[in-house]
Formats: sequence, structure tokens, C-alpha cells
Amino acid sequence: MNNTKTATTNDRSSESFLQVLKSKQMSALWVTQAAESPAARGGLPYPPKLWRGGEIEALMSWATELVQPGPEAERRVLSLANPNGGTLTAAVQMVLPGEVAPSHRHTPAAIRFILKGSGASTITNGEPCLMYPGDLILTPAWSWHGHVNESDGPMMWMDGLDAPALRALRAGFVFEEYPEGGIQPATKSPGDSYNRYGAGHLRPLWGQASSRVSPLLIYPWKQTEDALRNLAKVDSSPFDDVAMEYTNPVTGGHVTPTIGCCIQLLRPGTHTRAHRHTTSAFYQAFRGSGATVIDGVSYPWEEGDFLLLPPMAWHEHINSSSTEEAILFSITDAPIFEALDLYREEQR
Amino acid sequence: MNNTKTATTNDRSSESFLQVLKSKQMSALWVTQAAESPAARGGLPYPPKLWRGGEIEALMSWATELVQPGPEAERRVLSLANPNGGTLTAAVQMVLPGEVAPSHRHTPAAIRFILKGSGASTITNGEPCLMYPGDLILTPAWSWHGHVNESDGPMMWMDGLDAPALRALRAGFVFEEYPEGGIQPATKSPGDSYNRYGAGHLRPLWGQASSRVSPLLIYPWKQTEDALRNLAKVDSSPFDDVAMEYTNPVTGGHVTPTIGCCIQLLRPGTHTRAHRHTTSAFYQAFRGSGATVIDGVSYPWEEGDFLLLPPMAWHEHINSSSTEEAILFSITDAPIFEALDLYREEQR
Amino acid sequence: MNNTKTATTNDRSSESFLQVLKSKQMSALWVTQAAESPAARGGLPYPPKLWRGGEIEALMSWATELVQPGPEAERRVLSLANPNGGTLTAAVQMVLPGEVAPSHRHTPAAIRFILKGSGASTITNGEPCLMYPGDLILTPAWSWHGHVNESDGPMMWMDGLDAPALRALRAGFVFEEYPEGGIQPATKSPGDSYNRYGAGHLRPLWGQASSRVSPLLIYPWKQTEDALRNLAKVDSSPFDDVAMEYTNPVTGGHVTPTIGCCIQLLRPGTHTRAHRHTTSAFYQAFRGSGATVIDGVSYPWEEGDFLLLPPMAWHEHINSSSTEEAILFSITDAPIFEALDLYREEQR
Amino acid sequence: MNNTKTATTNDRSSESFLQVLKSKQMSALWVTQAAESPAARGGLPYPPKLWRGGEIEALMSWATELVQPGPEAERRVLSLANPNGGTLTAAVQMVLPGEVAPSHRHTPAAIRFILKGSGASTITNGEPCLMYPGDLILTPAWSWHGHVNESDGPMMWMDGLDAPALRALRAGFVFEEYPEGGIQPATKSPGDSYNRYGAGHLRPLWGQASSRVSPLLIYPWKQTEDALRNLAKVDSSPFDDVAMEYTNPVTGGHVTPTIGCCIQLLRPGTHTRAHRHTTSAFYQAFRGSGATVIDGVSYPWEEGDFLLLPPMAWHEHINSSSTEEAILFSITDAPIFEALDLYREEQR
Repeated sequence: MNNTKTATTNDRSSESFLQVLKSKQMSALWVTQAAESPAARGGLPYPPKLWRGGEIEALMSWATELVQPGPEAERRVLSLANPNGGTLTAAVQMVLPGEVAPSHRHTPAAIRFILKGSGASTITNGEPCLMYPGDLILTPAWSWHGHVNESDGPMMWMDGLDAPALRALRAGFVFEEYPEGGIQPATKSPGDSYNRYGAGHLRPLWGQASSRVSPLLIYPWKQTEDALRNLAKVDSSPFDDVAMEYTNPVTGGHVTPTIGCCIQLLRPGTHTRAHRHTTSAFYQAFRGSGATVIDGVSYPWEEGDFLLLPPMAWHEHINSSSTEEAILFSITDAPIFEALDLYREEQR
Repeated sequence: MNNTKTATTNDRSSESFLQVLKSKQMSALWVTQAAESPAARGGLPYPPKLWRGGEIEALMSWATELVQPGPEAERRVLSLANPNGGTLTAAVQMVLPGEVAPSHRHTPAAIRFILKGSGASTITNGEPCLMYPGDLILTPAWSWHGHVNESDGPMMWMDGLDAPALRALRAGFVFEEYPEGGIQPATKSPGDSYNRYGAGHLRPLWGQASSRVSPLLIYPWKQTEDALRNLAKVDSSPFDDVAMEYTNPVTGGHVTPTIGCCIQLLRPGTHTRAHRHTTSAFYQAFRGSGATVIDGVSYPWEEGDFLLLPPMAWHEHINSSSTEEAILFSITDAPIFEALDLYREEQR
Repeated sequence: MNNTKTATTNDRSSESFLQVLKSKQMSALWVTQAAESPAARGGLPYPPKLWRGGEIEALMSWATELVQPGPEAERRVLSLANPNGGTLTAAVQMVLPGEVAPSHRHTPAAIRFILKGSGASTITNGEPCLMYPGDLILTPAWSWHGHVNESDGPMMWMDGLDAPALRALRAGFVFEEYPEGGIQPATKSPGDSYNRYGAGHLRPLWGQASSRVSPLLIYPWKQTEDALRNLAKVDSSPFDDVAMEYTNPVTGGHVTPTIGCCIQLLRPGTHTRAHRHTTSAFYQAFRGSGATVIDGVSYPWEEGDFLLLPPMAWHEHINSSSTEEAILFSITDAPIFEALDLYREEQR
Repeated sequence: MNNTKTATTNDRSSESFLQVLKSKQMSALWVTQAAESPAARGGLPYPPKLWRGGEIEALMSWATELVQPGPEAERRVLSLANPNGGTLTAAVQMVLPGEVAPSHRHTPAAIRFILKGSGASTITNGEPCLMYPGDLILTPAWSWHGHVNESDGPMMWMDGLDAPALRALRAGFVFEEYPEGGIQPATKSPGDSYNRYGAGHLRPLWGQASSRVSPLLIYPWKQTEDALRNLAKVDSSPFDDVAMEYTNPVTGGHVTPTIGCCIQLLRPGTHTRAHRHTTSAFYQAFRGSGATVIDGVSYPWEEGDFLLLPPMAWHEHINSSSTEEAILFSITDAPIFEALDLYREEQR
């Protein structure tokens, strides 16, 4: 056993004790716990936040004057920052005609939900994914990906990443440029993964076994919209109206092990009941206008806006139009919470 | 311990021994095993068999003269019998305009692959599934189901059941008539399950958790054909050409715990390589003409024919046309063999 | 379409129809179903059966005069035959001092529950498993195994196999003699798998991932008996009293994909409540005496007896002693029924 | 679309842009990413840290003068703090004779590894778990637990919690005092869960199905030590020598969804090879003395010491005695990393 000075000091006061503890990289639980007041414990870890699509677009336009993707900037991305942490990040990215965002890969997984423009591509592990509004495109963890805009207009999309969760868990953020520089050449035809796994509930007989990483990289808007319309004919949720989760075709589960993607149709005049859950979400108002009431405060949104829902915040959704549909896309950390047995939900 | 005469008889010969054993419902392994010659062990458990679609139709036409579905016959079904056992059964069923095959339920699960006619319905647990050629319709184990033909032409389909496997396993064949008689009334709109789970890889947010029983009851031909055409653009198997398995949307796995359903497109001129596996299959020639070579013997088929492939039989598929596609639907017992860790495959 | 004579015959009677069907290897469902009377459907697929341990031993003693393991007989095994089929088989095997039952392997999986003798070995894939009464030893499907008795007394055990289920499913019965003949040499120390996986709920850090095949080959009686005694202190089942299932250490599930193994302690004076299930079982009365009431008929057993419980038969267990414990070992086909989603249970 | 001033300001400089972004709770990815230098990205997220058992005990002795468990302090716990974050926390807790640490429950799961003393209890959901050195005791998430020392000496143990991971993921830290105050009364006999699930690989026939939460709450040292000795006879890992993970008996997997528990025996003179993995660990030197070399720096430890291993740090273990064994207990976040598909390992 070690003999230490700490045990032989004459000053046996609490203050001295805490000082010695600190010098040893230790702390007293009864002190640190008291510092977290019960009230603080019960509150939201961070506040909700609404970002205006118009502001984002104006800022993005400004950004096009300041920076180009390539050597000077990996990506022209504006992050919708959560200074108080969280698990997921949302951002907006723009690639102008003729621009190339060079290929790289990293530990975090990413999803893209396409907002504006038509026909630029993300090349993921050699597969070109053509981008049209409403498409969902997956970039699984550690897969090579770059973007190239060969269309004649600007291309803009929402990025969703699990980078904050990975940083929080100290899972590292390993990052690698594509060895040959520039964009990885296409080695597959556009829609390769869709052609294998995309059309309905069939899979290649020789296809891969159950895998946490979805082999399907692109979920076209047409199919998503059809699914919403079909579901609207027969059922809805009191909390989310006509809401669906995108699935990994070989498991029926979440599209990635960390990020879940959802789409929901709020029918005209809908006002959902409140519930809350341990998971958080970023919503993107894809169509229509309405409001989300979070812990009693209304956050009105219109097409193009983004909204951050903190964990355990009561929330209800409103489509404020009596004639037009509203559609919300969202990313959630439900896969993480379910995998760690931490998912809980309350209904009011 | 029991004192028995068997131990005190004076005749200690083998013959006497075997006689006594038999009287006790016992047997000597060294005798029964020797009776199975090694050659017999290695052979196919039953031979392949081809049924002609034309003959089936002619017999079915004859059957319409002899029997109607209802009190006198649960179903107008001609079974493609395997007198030597097996795991699955294939059959053909016909319902004429105005006829009703009353609702019942049973332990075995069933699938229907629609061959001819247009617009009759199977009502499964209250959900009407409208039938058109090429559609796959599931009847999960123990679900109420009946058929009604309100169209103006005869409706004919292939039935696939796991009844032989269940009988072989002594899993019983429990059967129940619908309590009120006749056909169970529709309590859902046609396509209810398709509207929830059918269109691409999305599921209701509140949808059921992972389940061995597929919540999707109908897989329309249009979607299946699209999937085949898409896959044909990018990949194929040397053994099955452009082949896909239908999947349970909430697991990505087989559509039932016992019966797997596959569809395969043999492109013009295709001649696949041979392989064999512990699983068996019934093929239905849905489009085109060709042949399947089984253990060296060619079984030529054309549209409407059925073919039984025994377990561990080498087989290769041929589309004999150089211009027309051929499409085979099939049911297999792969779900059983995988669940029991008995699946094995060899490639030549 | 084929033109067939069947369609043009003039005799359109039912008899003629059925004859033509038969010639085509087809059958009419409404005829075959009617042949199975509803009563027949509801009955037991085969009757219960009790075998006396004393008789088995006397017959085994006789068998030692007639046959030796080796070239003339793979094994000296008396099968407790179920002439009406089923999924599992039980048998008794004896190896005398100095005898060797040569190594072979086969598709069916086997378990051994040791009844009498001390210190002979089963060598499974190079691992010697020493045998003592009450030990459970696994022989996973397709693993090399042979038996050698270097002790000075006869060794006798119960064999359990899934061969009937595999035959019923046409899964084949592939069988191979050990290439070099005789018994496979030991390449591991006795108890190798026990030393890795046996002692309590820990596993080697580098150990194999989740596997349907248990990496643990021997479950010693001492541990089993301790487990029973411990459980008896805190809980019991109304239907099976103090009953446990042996588990695969890397999954917590059944020890093989097809055969489940159970041990149950009936405390003095116990009379359990009746229940029934789709699964069947072979019981071996390992200690004590009592009776099992099956569908109202009492089958009294004593140490050494074997009892076959058919599927869906109501059964209750009685320990007829008011002072002595009774212990039943059993094998069941529950893994098969659960894997195929066919397990059902009713309680009276 | 919103009209915002941001789009109309005349100052179009980068500085102005970043200022506006910040005011909108946004950031430019190309700026924030550049701030993270590549070197910083590759480094360890926090340094290793060694705590001396002697110092901890001296400080704990001091703590006994300053605070008692009960109203003034939930627990007398000294945390081995990681000021730079991480996923798990290690701490040391002491309860003196006659003391009671009142029952509470919280979102984080906890494990206890017993260091000194004999016979105090943790009462978990009504089950008293008696504590002896080397025992592992689980406190699943959200289960009531309190500690009471009715023995005649101080009781000291290591606590392991997933609280940092839960905080990092914003999974909340919900905390509740036992409604009636004091310690929850025992409603089960000591060792209830051990008696059901503890002794070897058997489980109650009626026992609970597969569950992420281990139903076994106590893993006694005797069984653990036997398992280590058994494994040492037959195998070892080049990186961890004789190392085992405690398992959940109903899944064969980790004992909790977030914290894995391991025990390893370093045989006399052992010096393992280096490897590294994305997971981190807290080691507790339970027996013997040696050193762990982390990224080239040696951290010598002796009985009672604690050592923090950061993620992706190369490490090798040394038992510096040529005659005495050394035993390390450890907790790791492997369950989290595997659940999120983030586990990676490299061997040197």
C-alpha cells in the first residue's frame, strides 16, 4: 500500500479534503450531486430552436461569395449549431453548377434530404446517387463520398450526422481524404443500390445477409410520397398524424445504427396530441406551414424552416392550413436510444 | 428394477432377441441402420415431377362440373401430390364467378400466387385482397380466410402450404370453420396492409415491432415486375439469373416462418450453372418457356407448368427462347432449413 | 398449351376424374380432406409409451452377447422406437470395458445423458468428454464422435437424436466414417470446452460470437444438481415443479437448434397441475419414482424408466414418495417448434 | 420566405458573415473543421490516469470523518473523475458498520465490484445481495437499490456507472428517492436471482425470455475464480492473457446494455502483446502487481490501484512477479460501441 501525504495532513477540513481530492483527479459525489439542483436535473438539457429557411438561404447565398468547395473548404456547409450538445447535427449544404465537393470518408454516418435543385450527384463508394427534391440519400459510416453538380442550377440539401453523439462517446472522428484527390470515379451505374433493393419488398436471392448498414443508398421521393398517401388512406397516429420511418431493407429496422429518418404528413387542419420521449429530433419543414408546440411554446414554421426538438420535451404538431398538406422530414436518435435500452415515451 | 421374462428366456438367438425387442416397441440400431443401404441414403428422397398447365386446366374444368366450393367442398383445389412426402405442397384452386369459398382457418400457413382471372378477393382477417395475375397473397398461419369471386370470369391461382412439414413434425392440423359460416365480412378496406407496409422501404411510425408473421398480405405484380427489371439492369446470379425473394417488411426476412417465396427472371438465352441445396422447391412457370435440368435430366416447361425440385438435386435453368423472357415463381422450405441450421449448398 | 386426353375423355364421372388425377400424381383436396375425419384430426398423432428400465437393461445385457461395437455394428444401441413417427428419438447405448465405438459423424445432432458407469469417454471433435452419471454431453450436428471405455465397468447412457425430424423434413441423413478408422485421437484435454465455457456466467474474452451450436459440450451433474437445489429454494412451476432447461452459454437459448434438454426435480409428494403443448418429449426417470398422468391415464415410473409424451397431450407429474425426491431428465422438440413459430401451450 | 436583414447588410466580409451566423446559432463547417487540427483529431481524447489504492483508502478514511450516508449525502462515494469526459465512471464507496445508504433509483445502470469487508448487503428491487470480496453485483437501470452494513467491519467496493455516456447522449439523469425513505425492505431471500440463474448453464423452464437486462444480480467470486483457473488450463489471449467477460445468462451477451464487466488473470511473468480498440476501460488491480504500458508509457500498479485506459490507446499488460498471479477487474463501454456498430480493434 502507498503511504501518501494526503493521509497525514493536519488540516482535516472539508475544504482541504476537496482540494486534495481535486489534486488527485477525484471528486466527492455528495458535493458534485448537490451542485446539480433537482430542478436542473428535471429541465430540458437544451432549449428548442427554430431556424428560418429564408435566412439560411440568404446566408448560403452569401457563403457562395466567400468560399468554394475544394482545397479551401471541404464542404460549403452551414451547421445548425446546438451549443449545448446533443446527439445529432443538422446542416445545410449547397453545391453550385460545375462545383465539386471532393470525396472523403469519416467515422460519422450521414444522411442527405434533398431540398432544392435537380440532378447533381453524391457518389458513395462508387455509386452515383442523383439528387432530386424529397429524395433521401444515405452515406453510411466510413464510406467514401463526394458531391458533383453537373446540372445547371444550384443544388441544396439538408445534412444529418451523428457526429455529436460520436464525439460525446469519444468514438473519435477519423477523417480521410480520397487518396487520389478530387471526386471518386463512378464504378457503378446510377441507382445501383436502388435497382437491387429499392422497389418494394423483394431482395436479390444472393443478396447480403442481415446488416446494420443499409445496402440501399437512395430512397426516391416518388416512393416516399406514395407511401404517405397510401398510409393516409387507412391510418394515422394521434401524436404524429401520417408518419413513417424509412427502413433498412435487409432488417426492417432503422436506416443506420445511429440516425433514424422519418417523414410525416400533417393533413389540413391537423392538431396532434402531445407526447414526449427520450429521443430528440431535427425537423425540416418540406411542404406547407404550421407550428409545433414544445413545452407550451408555439414554434410556427413554414416551408424551408428547421426546428430542433430537445429530448423529453412535450410536443404537438399543427398544420395551420385547412386546405393544404404539410410535410415534415426529421432525423432522430431513436436508433441509439433503442440500442442502449434507453427509449422511453410518455403520452399526455 | 423390474423382473421381466425377456431376461429369462432360454432362446438367446438374434432372431429371438429381435422379436422380443419388437414386442417392446424397441429396435436394434445396428439392424435398422444396416437395412438402409449407403446408396439409398445418398439418393434423392423423391423424384422430380413436372405437371402440365394444360392438363391442370383441363382437369380443373372437369372439376367445375363435379364440385362447388361451399358445404360439399371446402375448396375446389387440385393438389400436386408428392406421394413420398416433403415439406411443402403446391396446388391449384379455381373459383368461378359468383362462387364463395367459405372462411376457415388452420395451423398451416398458405401463400397464393395468382395465375388467371381478375378481381376476385381473398378476405384475410377481414382484409379483402383483390387478386390479379402475378400478385402474391399471404395467409399467415391461423388467420381467417375465404375467397369470393364477384368478377365476371373464373379466377385461378397457385396455393402453397407448409402442411406436409407440419404433419411430418406432428405439429397437428387444427382446422376451424368461420363461426357464422359463409365468408368473413370485410372489416378493412382493400389493400389495407399494402397501404401500411407496401410501398417501398418505409413503415408506419407506430407500426408493429419485428414479427415473424409479415404484416403485409399482398405483393402486387407491378411492384414485383419493377423489382425484377431493376435488378436485371445491375446484377444476376450464375445459378438463378435475375432472382429475388419476397420479404417481410418488418424483418427483411422470409415472408413466413416456414415458406419462402421467390420470383426469377431468366433472360433470353440464359443457361445457368448447376448448384444444389438441402432445400426443395415448387416452381410455377409464369411467363415464357424453357427447361430445368435436374440431376442430368431435362424437364422442359412452358407457361402454366409446375415443377417439383427435390432436396440436394443438382439443377440448372434454361430459357430456351433467344428473344422472350421467362419468369418462374417458386416456393421453398428455406425458412425451415435456416431456422433449424440445416441449410447447405454446393456449387458445381 | 398442352392438349391432353384427360380433357377429351367421355366418362365425366367422379370416379374417372379421380383415376385420371391419380395417374397424374395429383389429388382432389375435397376428397383427401374428407378422408381425414374431424375426430381423427383432433386426436393424438401417436400414443404415449412407457419403457421399463429393468427390461431395457436385461435386453442390453442380451445384446452384449450378440454384438460388439466396431465393424459389425456402429453402435450397441437399443432404440425406443416410435412406429408412428415424431421428431426425436431416444435410445440406450452400452459400451463395455475395453470396447470402442468408432468415430463417425452425421447430419443429426445428438445428446447423451449418462445413466450408469464411470469414466468412459466420448471424443467429440478431438475433445474427450469423460462420462459420469447425470452428465449431459452434446454431439452437435456433423461433429466427429466416438466412444471408448477404458474404465473397468460397463458404461450406459441415454441417446437423444433429432433424426426423425430430419428424415421427416427430408433433410437427409448424411453419414461418414472417420477416415482413418477406429476412434478419432484426442487433440484436446478432457473438459476443454467446460474449461472455456462451463463454470458460471463468464466467457473467454476472445470467445466465439453468438452461435446456434453450443461451444460447451459437457454439463456435469454436480453443477446441474446444484442448480436444481438452488432453484428449489426460491421458486417452482405449477406444471413442472423445479424444472430447468440446459442452455447454450453464448446465446442463453437451447443447447442445439433442434433438441432441448431439461432436468426437473419433483419434490416429495408433488402432484403438478395439467398442461399441454405442441411439443413432445422423452422423459428419463433418473432418480426416485412416481407417475405421469397423460390424457387421464397414469404411467407409473421408477428409476431407469423412459416415457414418451406425445404432442398436445395433457400431462401432470406425480412424485409418489413423501420423503424422496424424484428427478426427470427429458429431451423436447421445443427448439424446432419455437423456430418455426409453432409453439402453443394450454393450461388446465 | 422570410425577408431578413442578414441578406441585405452591406458588409459582405467573412468576419461579418461569421458574426451573423453566430447570432443565428449557426456556424460555418469549413471554419469549425479547420479549427480542429488534424493532429488534434488523431490524438487520444483524454490521457490515461492511475489512481493509487493507498491514497484512495486514506481519502476514504478522511471522508468517514466528514460525511455519513443518509440525509446529508446519498452515498459516501469518491469518484475517479475524468475531467475530459468519457462514457463510464469509476468510483469507490464505503459503508461503515451500522450505516445505511438509503434506497434510490436512477436512469444510469451501475455495477459493484467488492474490494474489502464482508457481509454487508445491497438490496436491489427487494433482493438482498450479500457482498464479499471479488463478487460482482449488478444494479440495472432504474432499479431500486440501497446499501446496509450489518457486519462488524467497513465495506468498500468499486462502483461503475454509465452516467457520463447518458449525460453525453442527453439521456437525462432521472433520480428518485425511495418513497418511504430509508432502505427498501427485503422482499426476497438473499441470492434469489443467483438461485434462479446462477449455477452453471441452466435456466428455470418458466424463466423470462431473452432480455437486455440480466436477471442475475450477483456473480460470486468463487465461481469467477473457478472460471479463470479453468480457462487458464486450456487457453489464453496474446493481448489479455486469461481474460473473461461476465455474461447475461439469458442472452450470453453483456451484463448490461451499456457496461461490460471483465476479469483477467495475468499469469506470473506474463507480458502481453499490444492492441488497441475504440472502447475504453477502467481497470481495478484486484490481486498482485504489475504494469500496463499505454502508448509507450508504463503505469505500474499494485493491489487496490485503478487505471483509466482511453479509447484507441495501444496497451499491453505485465505481471511483474515471476511467482504470483495478478488479477485485473475492468469495466468497458464495449456494449455501447457494439450496439452502435462502432467497435474497431487493431493489433500490433
